[in-house]
Amino acid sequence: MKILVLGADGYLGWPTAMKLASDGHQVLAIDNGARRKLTREMGVPPLCEPPPFNERVGYWNSIQESKIEFQVCDICDYPALLSVFKEFKPETVVHYAEQPSAPYSMIGHEEARYTLENNLLGTLNLAYAVKEVNPKIHILKLGTMGEYGTPNIDIEEGYLEISHRGRTDRFLFPRQASSLYHTTKIQDTDLLYLYVRTWGLCVTDLMQGPVYGMFTKEMGGNPFLQTLFNYDHIFGTVLNRFVVQAAIEGSMVVYGAGTQRRGFLNLVDTLQCVALAVDHPPKQGQLNIFNQFTEVFSVLELAERVKKAAAELNLFPEIEHIRNPRVESENHYYNPKNSNFDSLGLKPTYLNSEVLKEMLIFILEHKGEINEEILMPKVSWH
Amino acid sequence: MKILVLGADGYLGWPTAMKLASDGHQVLAIDNGARRKLTREMGVPPLCEPPPFNERVGYWNSIQESKIEFQVCDICDYPALLSVFKEFKPETVVHYAEQPSAPYSMIGHEEARYTLENNLLGTLNLAYAVKEVNPKIHILKLGTMGEYGTPNIDIEEGYLEISHRGRTDRFLFPRQASSLYHTTKIQDTDLLYLYVRTWGLCVTDLMQGPVYGMFTKEMGGNPFLQTLFNYDHIFGTVLNRFVVQAAIEGSMVVYGAGTQRRGFLNLVDTLQCVALAVDHPPKQGQLNIFNQFTEVFSVLELAERVKKAAAELNLFPEIEHIRNPRVESENHYYNPKNSNFDSLGLKPTYLNSEVLKEMLIFILEHKGEINEEILMPKVSWH
Repeated sequence: MKILVLGADGYLGWPTAMKLASDGHQVLAIDNGARRKLTREMGVPPLCEPPPFNERVGYWNSIQESKIEFQVCDICDYPALLSVFKEFKPETVVHYAEQPSAPYSMIGHEEARYTLENNLLGTLNLAYAVKEVNPKIHILKLGTMGEYGTPNIDIEEGYLEISHRGRTDRFLFPRQASSLYHTTKIQDTDLLYLYVRTWGLCVTDLMQGPVYGMFTKEMGGNPFLQTLFNYDHIFGTVLNRFVVQAAIEGSMVVYGAGTQRRGFLNLVDTLQCVALAVDHPPKQGQLNIFNQFTEVFSVLELAERVKKAAAELNLFPEIEHIRNPRVESENHYYNPKNSNFDSLGLKPTYLNSEVLKEMLIFILEHKGEINEEILMPKVSWH
Repeated sequence: MKILVLGADGYLGWPTAMKLASDGHQVLAIDNGARRKLTREMGVPPLCEPPPFNERVGYWNSIQESKIEFQVCDICDYPALLSVFKEFKPETVVHYAEQPSAPYSMIGHEEARYTLENNLLGTLNLAYAVKEVNPKIHILKLGTMGEYGTPNIDIEEGYLEISHRGRTDRFLFPRQASSLYHTTKIQDTDLLYLYVRTWGLCVTDLMQGPVYGMFTKEMGGNPFLQTLFNYDHIFGTVLNRFVVQAAIEGSMVVYGAGTQRRGFLNLVDTLQCVALAVDHPPKQGQLNIFNQFTEVFSVLELAERVKKAAAELNLFPEIEHIRNPRVESENHYYNPKNSNFDSLGLKPTYLNSEVLKEMLIFILEHKGEINEEILMPKVSWH
C-alpha cells in the first residue's frame, strides 16, 4: 500500500515509517523539521540526537531492501502538500504532523498561537488535499486520550449513546481537555468529523495515551536509526522522564500527589496499533475511533515501578512530589475502554522490570550526555 | 460599564454598539472592515450600504449624547489587540469579530483557511489579552444554535448531565455542526472552555439562532445609522433573503423540502439578549451558555409567512424548492430549550405580519438597488 507519513522525523513518526516500510508498504516520509527546531530553540535536545532526517533515511535505504522515500514539506503550506498528494497518490496517510507538547502549548501567547495554527491549519490542509486528490484516501489521525479528560463516567471508544428525556442519539464522547495542545486535538476531530459527514472522508482517530520506550525492532540497536528521545519537562513523556531521572539517581519528579491515572503504552505497541488501523480502514463517510493504550497506571505507580527496576541495577533514585504545575484533577474516576484494538488482534507489550531495565541500561551508557537542568518543570498552567 | 465591541461594523455589531451606548455604557467599537471587504470581493454588497465605519460613528456622535469611541483593529493582530485592552481597560467584551457565513466557509480551501484562522486565532488572542490585562473581564462570545446540529434529543442550554453505566457527570452538550463556520464556533467554545477552567476566565456563550430584521430603536429610521443588511446567498440570513425575494415578486428559494427547523429571533431581541447577558456576568471560572432564539420555525413555514404578509401588500412571490446545496438533515426532531433568557426577563418580539410588512415596505423603497443575481445559491457542500 502507498502510505504517506506526516511528521515522519518525530518520536513516533520515524519508527512508524520504518515499521510500515518493513511491512512491505511503499512509504513517503514527510517532515518540516519542527520537532528538532523547537527542541533546539527551547534548549531541550533529545538524548543522543540521531542524524538529520535526510541522513537517517539515506542510511536506512543503504542497508534495507524496503526503501523509504522522503521529502521536506510543511503541511501548513497547502500548495506544497497538494503537490505531494498529486505526485505520490497515497492510499493511506498517517498524520503525526502536530505540535505534540502540552507544556509547550501553555508557555505563552506565541507558543499557543503556533500550536493552534500548526495543528488546525495542517489538519484542514490535509482534509482538503484528500478531498481534491481522492476522497477515498484513509486518514489515520493521532488523537489523544487527553481529549476525554477525566470524566466521572466510563470512557467509551469515541462515541457515546445518550438517552435524555425518553429519546436517544449517538454522539462523539464528550471531550474536555486540560491543555491547549490537547484542545487542538479535540478541535482537529471537530474538523475531520465535519468533513467525514459532509464529503464522505474516511478517517481513523487514534486516541493514544502517553507513550514510553525507545526501541523498536527496525532500529536494531543502531544509533543512526534511533528515534528522537526527549526526556525534558516539555517534550519528554512522563515515564521517559522518570527513567532518565532514575538512571542518574536523581529525583523522579511527580506532579502533585501523582494519583492522576492515565492509559499508557509502549512505543512498539503504537506501531502495532497503527499497522492494525492501516489494515482496517473505515467505510467512506465513517470516523472510526480507537482508544490506544494497553495499561492504566497512576503517575505515582509508574514512579514506584521505575524505582523497583532501578534497584535491580543498583540505582537508588528518590520520588519527589512537587506542586502540580498543571491544572488537572488528581483524585478522579478513570475507566477507559480499549477493546477495539484487542478485537483487531493487538498483542500488548506490558510494562515490566525487563522493559524498564533495558531503557535504564541504554540511558546509563549515555549518562554523560544528560542535561539535568531540563528535567524540572518550568512551565506552569497557573 | 466600559464595554469593548469586537466586530462593531457588522450586521449585529453596529446595532449592539449603539444600543449599549444608549443604555449608558462607555463603548469602544472595534472592526477591521472584514465584512465589507468580503462582501465587496464576492460581489454581494448589502442593500443601501451605510457610510463607512468611521463616518457612521462620527455621525452618531454628532447627534447623540452617548458617544461611541471607535478604532480600526484586527483582533488577529495580537499586539494591536493587547494595546486596545491596556488603554481602554474594558470590563466587558462583546465578541462578534468572526467570519459569520456558513456558505463562505464552504467555498473552497482559501475561504476555509481564512475562516478557521480568523475565528480561532482571534478568539485565542482575545483570551490571552483578557488573561494579561484582567482575567475578571467578562467575555460575551457569540455562538450559534448550529453548533448543536439537529440531535434526536432535546437541546438543553449548553450543558447536559449524562448518566452512563450507573455513574453521572455534567458535560458540554454534544456538538456536531454542518459547516466549517459552525464548526469554528464549536472550536472557539473548546478554546474558551479550556481557559475558563484553567485561568478562571469568565465567559458567556450566546448560542444564537438565525437573526432577521433590519430596524432598531437607535437607528431611528436614519439611513446613516442603518445596519449592513445582506440579502445574498452567502451573507444573507434566510428570512432576510425571503423578504427581499418577496419584495421583487421573485421566487423565495427554499433549500430542499424546507422542513429543516431552526430557532429564529429578531435583531432587536439580539440586542435585548446581549444587554441582559452584559448585566448578568458569570462568576470567575464559569462558562454560562444561553440559547438565544425566540421562536422555532421550519424554513418552509417562514416562506409561507412571508408570502402571506406580502399578499397584504399586493405582492405575490412564489415558493420554489431547489436541491439543497447544504448537507443537512431535512426531517429531524428539534426541541431546543431557551428558558435562560426568559428567566432573565427577555420580552420577545414575535414574527408577525407587521414585522414582515415593515421590512417589505423598506425594501420596496429600495427595489432599484436589489441585485437579483446574488439571490440564488452558488456554493454547494457536495
